[in-house]
Amino acid sequence: MKLYCATTNPGKLREFRMAGEQRGIGIEPVPGLERITPFEEAAHSFEQNAAEKAVYYSRFAPGPVFADDSGLEVEALGGDPGVLSARFAGENATDEENNRLLLERLQGVTGRHARFVCVIAVARAGEVLRIFRGVVEGRILGAPRGSNGFGYDPLFLYPPFGRTFGEMTDEKKMRVSHRSQALRAMLDWYTNAPLAG
Amino acid sequence: MKLYCATTNPGKLREFRMAGEQRGIGIEPVPGLERITPFEEAAHSFEQNAAEKAVYYSRFAPGPVFADDSGLEVEALGGDPGVLSARFAGENATDEENNRLLLERLQGVTGRHARFVCVIAVARAGEVLRIFRGVVEGRILGAPRGSNGFGYDPLFLYPPFGRTFGEMTDEKKMRVSHRSQALRAMLDWYTNAPLAG
Repeated sequence: MKLYCATTNPGKLREFRMAGEQRGIGIEPVPGLERITPFEEAAHSFEQNAAEKAVYYSRFAPGPVFADDSGLEVEALGGDPGVLSARFAGENATDEENNRLLLERLQGVTGRHARFVCVIAVARAGEVLRIFRGVVEGRILGAPRGSNGFGYDPLFLYPPFGRTFGEMTDEKKMRVSHRSQALRAMLDWYTNAPLAG
Repeated sequence: MKLYCATTNPGKLREFRMAGEQRGIGIEPVPGLERITPFEEAAHSFEQNAAEKAVYYSRFAPGPVFADDSGLEVEALGGDPGVLSARFAGENATDEENNRLLLERLQGVTGRHARFVCVIAVARAGEVLRIFRGVVEGRILGAPRGSNGFGYDPLFLYPPFGRTFGEMTDEKKMRVSHRSQALRAMLDWYTNAPLAG
């Protein structure tokens, strides 16, 4: 079995492939992805972004394509940065700039509850087949810890492990992360295909 | 709190309102729904149909709108009638005609596993916010039993109760049905709104 994904991000691709291999599903980028005009995420919900992205790229692949949209929702900020997580501090903001802005916004705030959300949509020939959501709850620290992962990982404390996502190995993070939850749900569905359509 | 739905079907509306009232959420049809050109379901997945329908009607309402798409997937028929459940025997087919055709197709077939699926999409101002799916597994009998419910209910045996959906009261069916599962998940989400957007 083979599934196409709508990313060339090496970190994501590695996570996707690790999870796929355990189920005998080969995962590869949409053929010629680097030559396709990139899809621009402009919606206000993860669901809409993931669905539109999957639909867009499914037109360039001979089989089902999945796309993910993910981000951090901070309760004290009413769910921000949310779908804008990657460009919180501006269009081409670095992880460091985004993290710094988040800490500024949370200065003096004691309620630090937050969650990572990942939504994966699967589409074929321009149509959404299914949508999956993974969520992991945690807290935003006052300063970064650890240098693994990416994005807001060093600020995101996962209380059951007493560590930030930046302090975990990829394997450990993948046991609990929002992305791997959504990914596993998607692969479970795809594996049990007879009534799946 | 108030939620708009994209149906004037009295049966569905009653189920929706019953579930909403238990949570203090008022549910009413999109204002002027009967004057809006009806949305035509043309996609091959429940997700795509529900999402498109919710998006379409959300443009006519001042708040969030939900829409459902549902149907019966029969394993021996490769998932048919699926999204075509309501028009299996033709565009304006009656429940009786659809049921008859289903029994014809299953004549001599011993594997009778099937499931009802309901997908509910919530949209606001033209954008999908969330998508929920409810599923209930059962078997297709050789002849109808009971006169409650609608659609394929009299053919759908729910093994844990030893009854078809056509032999159950609305209240009993609502404890286990695909629609009420999706509906409850949606209302739970809507009720716990702070990070919900």
